[in-house]
Amino acid sequence: MKAAFAVLALLAAPLQAAPATTGDLGLVVERATGSLLVIDRADRAAIGRIEGLGDLSHASLTYSPDERFAYVFGRDGGLTKVDMVEEKVVARTVQAGNSIGGAISDDGRLVAVSNYEPGGVKVFDTETLALVADIPAAGKTIGLVDVPGRRFAWTVWDTGEVFLGDFSGAEPAITPLGYAGKNPFDAVITDDAHTYLVGLFGEKGVTAFDLWSDHPEPRKFLTDYGKTGEDMPVYKMPHLQGWAFTEGQFALPAVGRHELLWVDRARLEEVATTPVHGQPVFVIAQPASPYVWVNFATPLNDTVQVVDSRTHEVVATLTPGKAVLHMEFAPRGAEVWISARDDNRVLIYDTHTREMIGEFAAEAPSGIFFTARAHQPGL
Amino acid sequence: MKAAFAVLALLAAPLQAAPATTGDLGLVVERATGSLLVIDRADRAAIGRIEGLGDLSHASLTYSPDERFAYVFGRDGGLTKVDMVEEKVVARTVQAGNSIGGAISDDGRLVAVSNYEPGGVKVFDTETLALVADIPAAGKTIGLVDVPGRRFAWTVWDTGEVFLGDFSGAEPAITPLGYAGKNPFDAVITDDAHTYLVGLFGEKGVTAFDLWSDHPEPRKFLTDYGKTGEDMPVYKMPHLQGWAFTEGQFALPAVGRHELLWVDRARLEEVATTPVHGQPVFVIAQPASPYVWVNFATPLNDTVQVVDSRTHEVVATLTPGKAVLHMEFAPRGAEVWISARDDNRVLIYDTHTREMIGEFAAEAPSGIFFTARAHQPGL
Repeated sequence: MKAAFAVLALLAAPLQAAPATTGDLGLVVERATGSLLVIDRADRAAIGRIEGLGDLSHASLTYSPDERFAYVFGRDGGLTKVDMVEEKVVARTVQAGNSIGGAISDDGRLVAVSNYEPGGVKVFDTETLALVADIPAAGKTIGLVDVPGRRFAWTVWDTGEVFLGDFSGAEPAITPLGYAGKNPFDAVITDDAHTYLVGLFGEKGVTAFDLWSDHPEPRKFLTDYGKTGEDMPVYKMPHLQGWAFTEGQFALPAVGRHELLWVDRARLEEVATTPVHGQPVFVIAQPASPYVWVNFATPLNDTVQVVDSRTHEVVATLTPGKAVLHMEFAPRGAEVWISARDDNRVLIYDTHTREMIGEFAAEAPSGIFFTARAHQPGL
Repeated sequence: MKAAFAVLALLAAPLQAAPATTGDLGLVVERATGSLLVIDRADRAAIGRIEGLGDLSHASLTYSPDERFAYVFGRDGGLTKVDMVEEKVVARTVQAGNSIGGAISDDGRLVAVSNYEPGGVKVFDTETLALVADIPAAGKTIGLVDVPGRRFAWTVWDTGEVFLGDFSGAEPAITPLGYAGKNPFDAVITDDAHTYLVGLFGEKGVTAFDLWSDHPEPRKFLTDYGKTGEDMPVYKMPHLQGWAFTEGQFALPAVGRHELLWVDRARLEEVATTPVHGQPVFVIAQPASPYVWVNFATPLNDTVQVVDSRTHEVVATLTPGKAVLHMEFAPRGAEVWISARDDNRVLIYDTHTREMIGEFAAEAPSGIFFTARAHQPGL
């Protein structure tokens, strides 16, 4: 019977560690150590750690449709496929010298990465990470997003050009959509995949492309948006993926100013501004609520503010910890998980009482990503 | 070593049957046999069947946050908890004589059921199905929805009254919200949990309640909406849960008429109508697209139409099979699964080519529910 017990013990160890379901799991990027924490909303805790992901100092990730795998885009050009059940790296390719983000196709078959060095977009098979397409660019590529129909859109920093790539056929079909403006720094797609919005750094304004149109064209708006002057230091470029879409409005982080800007979604016109605590980085909508939550650039990054999208007024100011880098909501909005890098903690707040209801240790945590993102176009 | 192999075989059997992840699974209600098919988007197939759910002739269900469990609301008043991994019933209570639907709280802790006979709302612990609260009503309850903050809203057919129940404290706090109108037949909450919309049968109109307000009040609109006259047969009451929210509009099924109605979401005014093939039952938005898909009441229920929310025109007419009862989209919108009850089949269509890409057998299939619903407020 000794043999039987040995086998049992061997089998039992990985099985007990493996969660039966992945619906309420997530990953926290540990930026200094190149590792990921596996987190569980049911436990309000970390349940595992995955190591060996390279340079995660500016990392993001996306999930497979079954929530089993995450595709992690590292600053060092590494694309890593991680198994959420086995809690391990299952494939990794350093596919460029410096990458800035990526996306998964609507059918879950392709993962695309936008690269700085050399610029361009590489597309991989999600099963094997085999290279499927290599699309060069005349500069650094930014703002890569998934577009329904096995397509991706992206933008080139150096030339200001926007492209739509269709990977549904035997050969990729790449369509230039036109000139967005000087030095686009980031782009985002709305949750209905209708509008691709490109933020500019080299000039003022935001440029919109209607991706429901057969022939999308650049449409510039918010021509007051951007860097105010040479004398205004920008401590951290805001993340446009954090644009909140609520009450028929976009809420944008102003560049370099202590302000949110509210834009009417249909008319693309500024409707209000909200003075806030610092330079906003992420502006994220609390699901099923009128509220957006905002974090800030250094040195004012110990604070989070909550703003009402109806009145455009700050309704709460919290100080969760040192160097708040990211916030992620439970998908029905009941709680928000906040990373405090310099406290080495993740804090969990009840969104209704706005009180802390949990916390756990993490090594210099930055991005927090729940698996529910697998089901959201554009994430 | 024989003992070791026996142990291995015992352990291996249930483990191989159990899917490691639940992100792309779902359930199909088999209405005639009181069973559920477990379906898998990766395989485009059924992977199991769960039996013993009683009368599922008018059933709906909701999922736990981890996607492990489904809570099934049967016509016979049965509330059944189903395990998606083990593919079996884990708890069942016949909690009323006749029930019409239910919802799960935003934190996943409570499941509520609205009952016809006797009328009222019963609230259960999702872990054990133990009764937590029993709220009587002066008639049949309909239109039960989850509201953030461990709350639910519901409506009483006989009296036209609407209630908001808060179950976040030690005792339930029930607040009457006022009179919606005569004989409300169904109600729905918008995806941002902002507006509770009640459709009326006993008079014309739809009544809206602003659930973001501290004191929601009834606001009647679309006073042309409803049953046209005594001479107009209504073959099937439309489902308001199928209201599509797209392009700043609601798309409503007209009652008894061959028409969709389009209502501006902000102004609550009718902006267009679309003549369609039959009396619409479900009007469902294709995610990340301008399109809604519509099915129809008997005897015109072999057809599905696709309508563009920008032009309000029918852009495609499909005939997937006999007695199309429901449609469910993959959460990023790449495909739609359609139940054809009288063909005993589920058909899978690519939403971009609008061509059939798969099918499988099912016993008189009706509702199709993917686990991604676990992450959507109001579903």
